[in-house]
Amino acid sequence: MNPPSARQARDWLRLARTQDVGPVTFSHLIARFGSATAALDALPALAQRGGGTTLKTPSAAEAEDEIAALAKLNGRFVLSCEPAFPSGLAALDPPPPLIAVLGNAALLSKEVIAIVGARNASALGRKFAANLAAALGEAGLVIASGMARGIDAAAHAAALPTGTCAVLAGGVDVIYPAENKALYDQLKTEGAIVSEMSLGESPQARHFPRRNRIISGLSRGTVIVEAAENSGSLITANYALEQGREVFAVPGSPLDPRARGTNRLIRQGATLTESAEDVLNVLKPCSLRPSAKPKHRANFLKTPRYWSAILKRHGTCCWHRLRRVRSRSTN
Amino acid sequence: MNPPSARQARDWLRLARTQDVGPVTFSHLIARFGSATAALDALPALAQRGGGTTLKTPSAAEAEDEIAALAKLNGRFVLSCEPAFPSGLAALDPPPPLIAVLGNAALLSKEVIAIVGARNASALGRKFAANLAAALGEAGLVIASGMARGIDAAAHAAALPTGTCAVLAGGVDVIYPAENKALYDQLKTEGAIVSEMSLGESPQARHFPRRNRIISGLSRGTVIVEAAENSGSLITANYALEQGREVFAVPGSPLDPRARGTNRLIRQGATLTESAEDVLNVLKPCSLRPSAKPKHRANFLKTPRYWSAILKRHGTCCWHRLRRVRSRSTN
Repeated sequence: MNPPSARQARDWLRLARTQDVGPVTFSHLIARFGSATAALDALPALAQRGGGTTLKTPSAAEAEDEIAALAKLNGRFVLSCEPAFPSGLAALDPPPPLIAVLGNAALLSKEVIAIVGARNASALGRKFAANLAAALGEAGLVIASGMARGIDAAAHAAALPTGTCAVLAGGVDVIYPAENKALYDQLKTEGAIVSEMSLGESPQARHFPRRNRIISGLSRGTVIVEAAENSGSLITANYALEQGREVFAVPGSPLDPRARGTNRLIRQGATLTESAEDVLNVLKPCSLRPSAKPKHRANFLKTPRYWSAILKRHGTCCWHRLRRVRSRSTN
Repeated sequence: MNPPSARQARDWLRLARTQDVGPVTFSHLIARFGSATAALDALPALAQRGGGTTLKTPSAAEAEDEIAALAKLNGRFVLSCEPAFPSGLAALDPPPPLIAVLGNAALLSKEVIAIVGARNASALGRKFAANLAAALGEAGLVIASGMARGIDAAAHAAALPTGTCAVLAGGVDVIYPAENKALYDQLKTEGAIVSEMSLGESPQARHFPRRNRIISGLSRGTVIVEAAENSGSLITANYALEQGREVFAVPGSPLDPRARGTNRLIRQGATLTESAEDVLNVLKPCSLRPSAKPKHRANFLKTPRYWSAILKRHGTCCWHRLRRVRSRSTN
């Protein structure tokens, strides 16, 4: 497939930014109409049939403005139909329609592992996250995280020399939390910053699960370092599981509430993780990462053909692990 | 089977205390000659055939003296051929020939769970052990441990009101470590004290694994609270595994060396334990404890009939868990 033309890219962005069009609807529209341009043309009629309300779609000029504004920050949009779209995200069902990337976009084509955890992390937890990020970075993995305070920030900072990528819940130009301004600046020059959201959009509570889906989706596996019960890190772990990626959890004392979530994950089948070796031992034998495919494959993902292709290419280990974890967690 | 006569008991003790006769040889001799008295008669000829050295056997008077001395302490020997012999120990292959018991021997016929761990335990570890022992005691379980400092002492002390049993590496009348004198005195009046060794015998390094085999053997399962790598508590865990009992381990931070052993056990399939419920959930559905059988059954234990009887009575869950753990630990 040829890279998208400027008009195709603009319409892809317009459709993605249309009111009430999330990744699922986007994916259905592309599958039905073949292109964003055709889908945009069909939208008014569809909306009228659906109930008469018109969906707000950004104008061509507004979309071009957002593309230009991102370019001015030395960033660019990567569409899910492009060859450069991260293969881990392309394998999601549905993939995010596009991502905005600041910094070194080449990092996203490498092997990525996510390290996430509690905001109110312990000093030991932050130290562990930093050591782990540095060791996995040395081993050639890019560290993805959410640029939150605590575990996330410690993992990013330690992985700056080897490669790290922050996924933000707001626009790529919105620094949150403000205390991570210095880290953000370093990530922009030495690492990469990614978001699904519009430029200038402030992060809101409902954005965080969507951000977490991108973190686990970029990654072959997610390591949860400290997590209280019902914390956001466990949402990331659930996404990783749904996406067929590995889940790693760091154990802790039962008397430390920040270990409740990670201990539960271990009980449910996550790999007990004490060192980088524990992560590498799992990732090495089963290369889950699907090769980049420059086509929109939301529907393909649902078919038995997809799974048989995955099994053929990568063996059964990941799949079996996933099933084991799933059957345990439903007990 | 009738309870043993005074002479049978005396000869059983003499054979058990004979130089170089451990539980395995004892068990073979009883199987071959039918009684301790007959085995003692045959010993000189056997030793001569074996190489000419005479095995030192205590005289009848010496054995009677040990029985009288134990009685003076309000204790008594329980032989493995007696109905009162703890059923968990009777199921071992081979069982200890006899145990000396001080205090409340009735505790040994109840459901027992072992709680063991590091001598140089952390304050949190000791607190956890105490809470767990109290909660499991409330649930009706007797707490067994080794009266060592640290985790063992904390578990015993917390379980005094509900029932606890200390297994000593030396004689039941030898207080070790000396700092646990007050605890020993309480155990003697409120709990029970058990040992395989002769009265007055000081504990030596080689006695501790044998003591650990009794701790796990008395118990339906063993909880390891804190354990460094290659520590004695892991020997107890291995015995529990070999004996087909449950192994429970309390997780801890990878940065705490006292969690190395327990985290490894969890990795190998031990039940991750954060509370008494975690223990009770495993013990409740599968009642492993074989009913007391007043016969010497070392040989029976080796036969497929034994296992089919166990499976028939208790279902397959324990057996499956054991196999799972075993196959993991050989990986």
